[in-house]
Amino acid sequence: MRAAVLYGPHDVRVESLDAPQIIKPTDAVIKTFATCVCGSDLWDYRGINPAKDPAPIGHEYVGIVEEVGDQVTTVRPGQFVVGSFFASDGTCLNCRNGYPSNCLHREFVGGCQAEYIRVPLADGTLVATADLPTEDQATDLLACSDVMGTGWWAAIAAGVQPGDTVAVVGDGAVGLSAVLAARELGAERIIAMSRHESRQKLATEFGATDVVTERGDNGVAHIKDLTHGIGADRVLECVGTEQSTQQALNSTRPGGGVGIAGVPHGVQIDGTALFYSHVAVQGGPAPVRRFLPDLIDRVMTGRINPGRVFDLTLPLDQAAEGYKAMDERRAIKALLRP
Amino acid sequence: MRAAVLYGPHDVRVESLDAPQIIKPTDAVIKTFATCVCGSDLWDYRGINPAKDPAPIGHEYVGIVEEVGDQVTTVRPGQFVVGSFFASDGTCLNCRNGYPSNCLHREFVGGCQAEYIRVPLADGTLVATADLPTEDQATDLLACSDVMGTGWWAAIAAGVQPGDTVAVVGDGAVGLSAVLAARELGAERIIAMSRHESRQKLATEFGATDVVTERGDNGVAHIKDLTHGIGADRVLECVGTEQSTQQALNSTRPGGGVGIAGVPHGVQIDGTALFYSHVAVQGGPAPVRRFLPDLIDRVMTGRINPGRVFDLTLPLDQAAEGYKAMDERRAIKALLRP
Repeated sequence: MRAAVLYGPHDVRVESLDAPQIIKPTDAVIKTFATCVCGSDLWDYRGINPAKDPAPIGHEYVGIVEEVGDQVTTVRPGQFVVGSFFASDGTCLNCRNGYPSNCLHREFVGGCQAEYIRVPLADGTLVATADLPTEDQATDLLACSDVMGTGWWAAIAAGVQPGDTVAVVGDGAVGLSAVLAARELGAERIIAMSRHESRQKLATEFGATDVVTERGDNGVAHIKDLTHGIGADRVLECVGTEQSTQQALNSTRPGGGVGIAGVPHGVQIDGTALFYSHVAVQGGPAPVRRFLPDLIDRVMTGRINPGRVFDLTLPLDQAAEGYKAMDERRAIKALLRP
Repeated sequence: MRAAVLYGPHDVRVESLDAPQIIKPTDAVIKTFATCVCGSDLWDYRGINPAKDPAPIGHEYVGIVEEVGDQVTTVRPGQFVVGSFFASDGTCLNCRNGYPSNCLHREFVGGCQAEYIRVPLADGTLVATADLPTEDQATDLLACSDVMGTGWWAAIAAGVQPGDTVAVVGDGAVGLSAVLAARELGAERIIAMSRHESRQKLATEFGATDVVTERGDNGVAHIKDLTHGIGADRVLECVGTEQSTQQALNSTRPGGGVGIAGVPHGVQIDGTALFYSHVAVQGGPAPVRRFLPDLIDRVMTGRINPGRVFDLTLPLDQAAEGYKAMDERRAIKALLRP
């Protein structure tokens, strides 16, 4: 089968690899319908995470079940399935508490930019659709497998309630998805922080009512201007830098909430400042699996179109161009079709 | 009138001062029925906070309204009232959001170890009881004005729900009150972290089901032993040091909550560790005024006896001995009677 392999910084090649097989009786093998490039793949692509041997890459997927292990009972060959980047057993204490991305037996589902993938713990990880989706629906479902699930988590972690004023820090695919999540959860006012016209446009279409272009202290001041001087009820942090985290914390009203979806890089939070702000903070790798049944329902009933974050579609063989376009910020998110 | 004055490290004197007067039409003057010494007063007493000129001290009070300003409408002379250490207007955005201790017009109510005190913003700050309390009830209400309200806040900020397993870090008056709060909020299992026998005893009487005597990593390990290896659902941090904060964060299960009631001293929280733990954190100066009507009701109906944290009662003139006993940890909390 064909699969994208990262050889080193800025060097992605599509090669022929052996197709994956069932290894454990709880595995499923999926024939990928579509996969995509994640902002977090760019950390590897740019060589910021240390280079290893050439390795298959990608962790987002939707597709048709090709084969299942003997112990798999909830999905069967022929079904269209969506899953998360963390395989989870669905039965451990952390899964039952709603944190499948912290499953006691979690496994990262890697090498997904490929024609076939092996998904461990299939029963706890995959959700099948009732009917085969249309091509557009399948694209929306692919977004749910990561960015939409992560934007949703940012909104849940921040505690978004109907009527809230919500600010979103970051205008990547996760930030844009977070805008859509805030709208779906009933936010009345949604402030997107973005300085890119095409992203501002999609944010507005996803439900943003205001756009703030400034960053740092100026961005915080602008948010306060829009919120009676006290800050937004909830702020969704979708970047992960020290600056964006401070911007999120400082943009939140006393007693408001910050949901952190951006993987932190070198972030320290001052305990005293956090204390006196009364701001609540929660973050983490998104427990996407928790949200999948709801998100799938919203997609299949036409309520949301999170697949609109894909503004570049390429055949899998051109994966390298997908990475390049995202690295150069020419594309928000690249979909790859095997 | 007689009032306690802090002259410098370990030097508290009770002197004659002019009684306070109504200054603003929103003020009330209270004849103090009882006041007490707070753990946070010890920071000044020990000289850890820089010494200033001799200054009246204390911020906990209950008493009878002596006089009110022209604009005060909700309390009247002769009523028994409870208030918080932060005066709040009750009408600003932060008050309406439930954070009176972050009131846009808040004022610290100081100099309360005295026969009379002036309370600003009386309408937003004071809550009158329907009937005059008994002496025991008045003692319980004094606890509500700070430590019980703060313990309650720790439990609310951590998100305690019925059925939860809750751990409490700190066995001072706030920690013990937090145990009682967790019980009242329906926690099924309450683990008190304490190494002092008299405090363990009161914690148990307040509802603790388990006692853990170890601190730091050993304390965390013991908590995990008691919680299927994952940690407590909610952890109430009632100390404020770097070690106690880490202990609280590390004792919490993925997706659980930490409520921080101890004023942080030099605490830094690592963003990456917090992220991967999925733990939710909220803290701050307790919005005691939010909880007072509920707490007063629980006291007046005999449901809770938070005044049991007072294990030393002295006449106001012996305030110095109250400080000394708490400083030397001979007393949990000293009540002073003018």
